[in-house]
Amino acid sequence: MMLIESLLNVDKSSQVPVYLQISNGIISYIRQGTLKPGSALPASRALSASLNVHRKTVVAAYDELYAQSWVDVIPRKGIYVAKNLPDVAPRPIEKAVLKHSLANKTSFKVDDNRINPQRMFVPMPNGNLTFTEGFPDTRIAPVDLMVREYRRMANYHFTHKYLMYGPEQGSENLRNELARFLGETRGLHVTPKDILITKGVQMALYLCAQVLINKNDIVIVGDPGYSGANEVFEQAGAQLAFVPVDEHGIDINAVEAICSVRKVRMLYVVPHHHQPTTVTLSSERRMHLLELAAKYQFAIIEDDYDFDFHYTSGPILPLASADYYGNVIYVGSFCKTIAPGIRIGFMVAPANFLLQATRLRRLIDRQGEHLLEEAMASLLKNGDIGRHLKKANKLYHERRDILCKLLEEQLGEYLTFKIPSGGFAIWVKYLNDLDTALVSAKANELGLTIGAGLDYYYDKFVKHSFVRIGFASLNEKEMQEAVSIWKKAIMKCLHLA
Amino acid sequence: MMLIESLLNVDKSSQVPVYLQISNGIISYIRQGTLKPGSALPASRALSASLNVHRKTVVAAYDELYAQSWVDVIPRKGIYVAKNLPDVAPRPIEKAVLKHSLANKTSFKVDDNRINPQRMFVPMPNGNLTFTEGFPDTRIAPVDLMVREYRRMANYHFTHKYLMYGPEQGSENLRNELARFLGETRGLHVTPKDILITKGVQMALYLCAQVLINKNDIVIVGDPGYSGANEVFEQAGAQLAFVPVDEHGIDINAVEAICSVRKVRMLYVVPHHHQPTTVTLSSERRMHLLELAAKYQFAIIEDDYDFDFHYTSGPILPLASADYYGNVIYVGSFCKTIAPGIRIGFMVAPANFLLQATRLRRLIDRQGEHLLEEAMASLLKNGDIGRHLKKANKLYHERRDILCKLLEEQLGEYLTFKIPSGGFAIWVKYLNDLDTALVSAKANELGLTIGAGLDYYYDKFVKHSFVRIGFASLNEKEMQEAVSIWKKAIMKCLHLA
Repeated sequence: MMLIESLLNVDKSSQVPVYLQISNGIISYIRQGTLKPGSALPASRALSASLNVHRKTVVAAYDELYAQSWVDVIPRKGIYVAKNLPDVAPRPIEKAVLKHSLANKTSFKVDDNRINPQRMFVPMPNGNLTFTEGFPDTRIAPVDLMVREYRRMANYHFTHKYLMYGPEQGSENLRNELARFLGETRGLHVTPKDILITKGVQMALYLCAQVLINKNDIVIVGDPGYSGANEVFEQAGAQLAFVPVDEHGIDINAVEAICSVRKVRMLYVVPHHHQPTTVTLSSERRMHLLELAAKYQFAIIEDDYDFDFHYTSGPILPLASADYYGNVIYVGSFCKTIAPGIRIGFMVAPANFLLQATRLRRLIDRQGEHLLEEAMASLLKNGDIGRHLKKANKLYHERRDILCKLLEEQLGEYLTFKIPSGGFAIWVKYLNDLDTALVSAKANELGLTIGAGLDYYYDKFVKHSFVRIGFASLNEKEMQEAVSIWKKAIMKCLHLA
Repeated sequence: MMLIESLLNVDKSSQVPVYLQISNGIISYIRQGTLKPGSALPASRALSASLNVHRKTVVAAYDELYAQSWVDVIPRKGIYVAKNLPDVAPRPIEKAVLKHSLANKTSFKVDDNRINPQRMFVPMPNGNLTFTEGFPDTRIAPVDLMVREYRRMANYHFTHKYLMYGPEQGSENLRNELARFLGETRGLHVTPKDILITKGVQMALYLCAQVLINKNDIVIVGDPGYSGANEVFEQAGAQLAFVPVDEHGIDINAVEAICSVRKVRMLYVVPHHHQPTTVTLSSERRMHLLELAAKYQFAIIEDDYDFDFHYTSGPILPLASADYYGNVIYVGSFCKTIAPGIRIGFMVAPANFLLQATRLRRLIDRQGEHLLEEAMASLLKNGDIGRHLKKANKLYHERRDILCKLLEEQLGEYLTFKIPSGGFAIWVKYLNDLDTALVSAKANELGLTIGAGLDYYYDKFVKHSFVRIGFASLNEKEMQEAVSIWKKAIMKCLHLA
C-alpha cells in the first residue's frame, strides 16, 4: 500500500478547510492513478496521527469522499478506493480532438446588421472621477438588507418552493407588496394580477415593443429623448416620429398634429425628469395626452423610472392613475432604488395586453429570479425600502444642492442650468460656444469622465451645447474635485478656441 | 407639548428592532398631524426612562428620524419635528381620482394571438406527491453556498462595482471560470469571449431563434421533442420539419432527406437524454450531423442541458467539440445543477453570431444579475460546483436505481422502460392499452401528480402510451409511496376498461 500519509500536505493557514484539503488531495492521487481502485485507505485514527489533525477531520474527509463516490466503505473492514470511479469520463466523438474546437466565424449566414448597432457597455476608466448621466450611489445600496433576506430564506424549508419554477408573471408576494406600494405612493389602485415583474425597465420596454409594434408602425418619442428606448422600438420595426421637449415636457400639440395625419401606434413618455432634460410633464399636458390617446387609440408607455426621487416639489401622479380607457402601460423599476445591477422592474397594464406580455416573457427567459423577487417583497413589506428611500432622498437632495452651488460659484460664467425638482441629474447648457465633445475629451485627460452628449438627439450630428450631469453618485469632496477638474478642462478648451 | 411617551408602544418581543418601533411610531404621529412641524421631541434621556429602554435605543431612533429628514436637530437646544416634512406628497393630475384607475382592457388594439398560446406555469397541487418530468431535488440545492458568496461579497468594497451596470455578455469572472470548466468537462477549448451568459437555456434558445430565423425558415426538430423549444422557434416565424427519434437519437438520414429538397436554416438537438425520450445521440450520428451542417450550411443548436449528470456510461463530448466549420451553437445551464429557479445558462458560439446575440440580449434586459453571476464564478472556482455535482450524481444514481427496481417489481406487468444512462427521468411505455391521460387523472385523485404526456408529440392528438417520469426529486420513501399510488391508479383504469 502507498504511504498516502506521506503524500498529503495539510496547510492549516489556508482558507480551504483541512478536511477538504485531505479529500481533494486523495481525489487527485486517485485521478493520477497513484491510488488504484480497490486499494485500502489508512484508518482514520492512523491518518489523523500522521497528519497531526483531529480524527474528526479525517472522518469528515472520508465522509466527503464517500458522498462523492470516490471510496467504498466495507463495514468492519475499512475504506477502499471505489472500484467504479465516479469520474464518468467523456468519450470524444472522433479520434483527434482539436485544440481550438470553435471556428471563429459561422459557415451558415448571419446578418451582421440584424440587431441595431448600438452603444454597448464600456467599463468606467479606472481611477477617473465620473459624472454619470444620473445613477444612484451604489455605495449606499442596501445590499446588506438583501443579503439578510437571502440568509433568512436559506434557513427555511419553504425556500425550496422558490427554487423550483415559478409564475412567469413574477413572485406573488412581490406583486402583492407592489400593488400596495403603488397604491400608497402613486395612487395606482391595482391588484397583483395587473402587474408583471420584469428585469428592469429595459425588459418592460422590450415586451411592449414586441407585443405591439408591426413593421413601420408610428411610435412618438421626444427629441431629445432616451436613445435606449428608441433602439428597442426601432428593432421591433417602428418608424419613430419626434416631438419637441420644452420646460413642461413633451409638446402635446405636436403629438396631436401627428395624430391628425398619421395612424399612431404608441407614444413613449418619461413623465418625471425627462431623459435627458430632467423636465416634468405638467398636469395639463397629462390630461391632454390621455384625451388624445382615447381619441386616436394609441398606447402610452409611461416610463416613470424615478418617481420615487423627489426633493423640492411633490411628484405628479402617473397618467396611469387617471387611465379610464386602458391606454396606459405603466413601467417602473427598483434599479435606482437598490442598484442598477439588481434587475427588478415592473409593468402595470390592462389584462389583455398583460397576458400577451407575460406569454412573451415566458418565451424569453421563462421567469425572473424568484429568490431575488422574494427578498424584494420582504424589503417592501417590512418597510426597509420606504426607509431607504427616505434616507436616499435626503442624501441626494443635499448632493443636488451642493453640486448646484458648486456649479454656480465655480462655473457660473461657463454654463447655465435649472435646478431639477428630483431625480439624479442636472441638464447643463454650456455657454461661449463650448464644444461638448472637446470638453469631455479634455476632462478625460485630466482625470474626470464626463458625457459628450452624443446620444441625446436622434440625429447624432445635431449641434447642441447640453450635457447631463449626475449628482447622486459622488460625495461632497468628490464633487468639489470633479468640478475643479471640469473647470480646468473648460479653461483649456476656451484657450484653444 | 403632546406627551409622545404616552402614545408610543414598545414590544420587546417583536421582530422589529425597538429603535425602529420608536421611530416608526413617531413618524406615524407626525403623518397623522398629532405631532406638528416645529414641535419639540423629548430629550433622549427622558424618553428612554419613560419607555423603559436603553438611552442608546432612543438615540438610534432619533438618528433614524434625522436620516429620514423627519426631525431637525438644533445644537444645544434639542430635537424638533422638521419644518419641511420629507413626505413630498404627490399631486393628482385631476380632481377626482378613480378608485380603480386601470381599465380592464385596452382601447388600442391588441392581437390576442400574437404570442403563441402555450403551456403556462401551474403551481403543483399542495399535498400531492409529484413525479416531475425530470427536475433536480431542490432540497439538496446548495443555496447555503450561494448565500455564503453573497455575504462575502456584501462585506467587500469591490462589490459596488458589481452593483453598477456591467457587460451584456455577462460577468468576466464567470466567463473565465466557465471557459475552464467547459474545457475540463467537455473538451470545449474556448475563451471567455466565446461565451454569452444567459438566463437559463430558455433565453439562449430565444436569442438563437430571433437572431437566425426569418419567416418560414425551416427548422428541424425531433418528434417527439421539446415543446418549449418548438414554441420559441415558431414564435420567431419558423416552419418546423420533424424527424423521428430512435434509441440512438434523432434520425440523421431523415435530416439528410429534408436537406436534399429544402433549404434548412437550423436544427435543434438535445444530444444527451433527448427530451422526452432520454436517448443519447450516438457518436456516428454526431459526425454525420456535423458533415451535413457543413454541406448544407445550417446552424445546429446543441442543447446539452444535462451533460453534467451521468451515472453508468460516460457522456459523449459535444458536437461543438469537433465543430471545425462554425456551425454549432452550444447551449447549457446551471438550472439543473443549482436549482431551476436560479437562472444561469450560457451559450458558446462563433464570434459573428455571438455579437448579434449579445446585442439582442442588451435590448431585452440589458444584462444578467451581476451579483449572482459573481457568486456562481466563485462556486466554480473554489470547486464547490464540482463537489456538489459529484454528490448529486451519486444521489440521483441511487434514486434512478431505486425507482427502476420499484417499477420492475411493482409495475412490471403494466409498463416497460429502458434504464437511462443519466439525466433525471425514465421514459416509460404503458402496456395493456392504458390511457396516459386517464392514469394521470386517476393518480391525481389519489394524491399523485403524474404527467399525461400531452406535449411530447407536436400533434397533441397523436395517440401514444408514453410518460416521462422524473426520479431525481423524490427520496426512497416518497418513491415507494408514489409507486404504490400509481399502481392503484393503474388498477382502477384497468378495472374501468
